[in-house]
Amino acid sequence: MTSIEIRIELKKGVADPEGKNTKKTLESLGFQGIGDVKSVKVFEVEIDATPEDAIKMAEEMCRKLLANPVIQNYKVAVM
Amino acid sequence: MTSIEIRIELKKGVADPEGKNTKKTLESLGFQGIGDVKSVKVFEVEIDATPEDAIKMAEEMCRKLLANPVIQNYKVAVM
Repeated sequence: MTSIEIRIELKKGVADPEGKNTKKTLESLGFQGIGDVKSVKVFEVEIDATPEDAIKMAEEMCRKLLANPVIQNYKVAVM
Repeated sequence: MTSIEIRIELKKGVADPEGKNTKKTLESLGFQGIGDVKSVKVFEVEIDATPEDAIKMAEEMCRKLLANPVIQNYKVAVM
């Protein structure tokens, strides 16, 4: 089993309402000096394959299901 | 500015319907050899503070807002 981390982020310039609202709420709770807040989705996937094959499979999973190429980038790494 | 990664995971034993459904859907798309699929929420937060202070602030953010201590664990790290 290879443990893979799949990280799905919004592309630059794409609005991140979850990040923005989190920042606003943190500020309303009194936190100061907060810059950008970015929300990221991560999947940890166990795959019964060599690390090399598992990475290729995970990239295919992103292309076929997990990521929306119009607004999201993905990164795949062995954990 | 210190960039902090806040990683919010479900505690062991807590149901992860998003992970389970992702696994099911990947399998229905023909992917084989998939073990556990875990969904994780990550926030990348820029904080105008030293790394040490930024980590303390981020931990406080988790306690006050971002994580639900009943079902979630959090990890904070400098990026």
